[in-house]
Amino acid sequence: MKKRYFLYLSYNGTAYHGWQIQPNGVSVQEVLTKAVATLLQEKVEITGAGRTDTGVHAKLMVAHFDTESNITKNFISKLNSILPQDIAVSEIRQVLPESHARFDAVLRRYEYVVTTEKNVFEQEFAVKVSSLDFQKMNEAAVLLKNYTDFTSFSKLHTDVKTNNCKIYQAIWQQVAPEKWVFTIEADRFLRNMVRAIVGTLFEVGKGKLTIEHFCEIIEAKDRCSAGSSVPAKGLFLVGIQYPDTIFINK
Amino acid sequence: MKKRYFLYLSYNGTAYHGWQIQPNGVSVQEVLTKAVATLLQEKVEITGAGRTDTGVHAKLMVAHFDTESNITKNFISKLNSILPQDIAVSEIRQVLPESHARFDAVLRRYEYVVTTEKNVFEQEFAVKVSSLDFQKMNEAAVLLKNYTDFTSFSKLHTDVKTNNCKIYQAIWQQVAPEKWVFTIEADRFLRNMVRAIVGTLFEVGKGKLTIEHFCEIIEAKDRCSAGSSVPAKGLFLVGIQYPDTIFINK
Repeated sequence: MKKRYFLYLSYNGTAYHGWQIQPNGVSVQEVLTKAVATLLQEKVEITGAGRTDTGVHAKLMVAHFDTESNITKNFISKLNSILPQDIAVSEIRQVLPESHARFDAVLRRYEYVVTTEKNVFEQEFAVKVSSLDFQKMNEAAVLLKNYTDFTSFSKLHTDVKTNNCKIYQAIWQQVAPEKWVFTIEADRFLRNMVRAIVGTLFEVGKGKLTIEHFCEIIEAKDRCSAGSSVPAKGLFLVGIQYPDTIFINK
Repeated sequence: MKKRYFLYLSYNGTAYHGWQIQPNGVSVQEVLTKAVATLLQEKVEITGAGRTDTGVHAKLMVAHFDTESNITKNFISKLNSILPQDIAVSEIRQVLPESHARFDAVLRRYEYVVTTEKNVFEQEFAVKVSSLDFQKMNEAAVLLKNYTDFTSFSKLHTDVKTNNCKIYQAIWQQVAPEKWVFTIEADRFLRNMVRAIVGTLFEVGKGKLTIEHFCEIIEAKDRCSAGSSVPAKGLFLVGIQYPDTIFINK
């Protein structure tokens, strides 16, 4: 009988056309699916907790798949040796058969990393910014929690039924003298949402947008009012939470 | 009249054939020299505090050069905009005319970074190791301070007059659950010395060499007794110290 598993993984998104299988370009989902199929010697289908766009990284992505094969103790280390250097699996957990990596997720967390000085070791993992007023950006960011409709920060023409999200946290924190990280948590995110929010917060940080104008942009429910989307390389999916009840053998 | 300056820089060594100008390959010294010459519109010669080999990184390298040009306030930001993304300058300081980035250095510090799990973000900046006994490796490392002749850890056929070094610190420290850093400080280092020491300490950490055998290797003064050299990508030059007295306008 088939059993369902959640696979926990990280990837450096630099070389990939995002998570989702694409006709024109190599995706993380495709490479992972092939690796698991090779290891288990069977056809598998892997479903991710969400998409990440081209060039976006994941410190923690979750994906589910079904298999009749026995998952041995060395499954993770064997899979890592098949996978390329820029994709790593860290854990596999059996879940209830109807559990779903995407639909059962109750919280997702992203980070956006910027450096205020040129940093030769963060080229692929952070965006260099000129001086920004992070305090002002935090005054704006905290107001995101007051809203639920984020149409203004969504990619146009997507197929979702609602643009409502519940934001639990949105804050810029200084993690090193020349490094700031924006952490945002929500029950769900619309396509392109984090990068559009960060781009609009940059406008606030440069003094080009007032806090009042920032709120008006959200209230306008119009993508064209918001700031432009920031580069993918600064964005990391860092966490996904599920109810404890879906896991077998916790 | 020409004035002498110390330039402080960092580089991601991945794409370079080391620091030193080479006939067959692009070096950091070459790229930096061209950038400074372009900015100052004059021919300059840049002398580094030491070499780093192909693929080795620097969080802090120091180099000196002479110029009659006026060093303006925005010299660093202008130079950074000319330099490629993987080389960054952070500071320029005027020094006494006879000061020398290499000969006046009194201490150099290197770090060697290893991860005990596959890490997709450290591909270029750390070496993945299987389980090592870091406590045992530290027992061996501290003994390095008892020796001065490091012929056993030097590249053969170099042109230095003496293989004597004074080691001030040599220690493995855990900086994250799956990340360890070896820090070594000395007045000078022989070519390939850090990577040969780390390679030999790995043998200790795997239980293939006893502490006694480790000491015998140093005492043998023979490169062939030591462990093999470890990959360049885990190695960082991280600090160089000079006497305060050489700096003008401290």
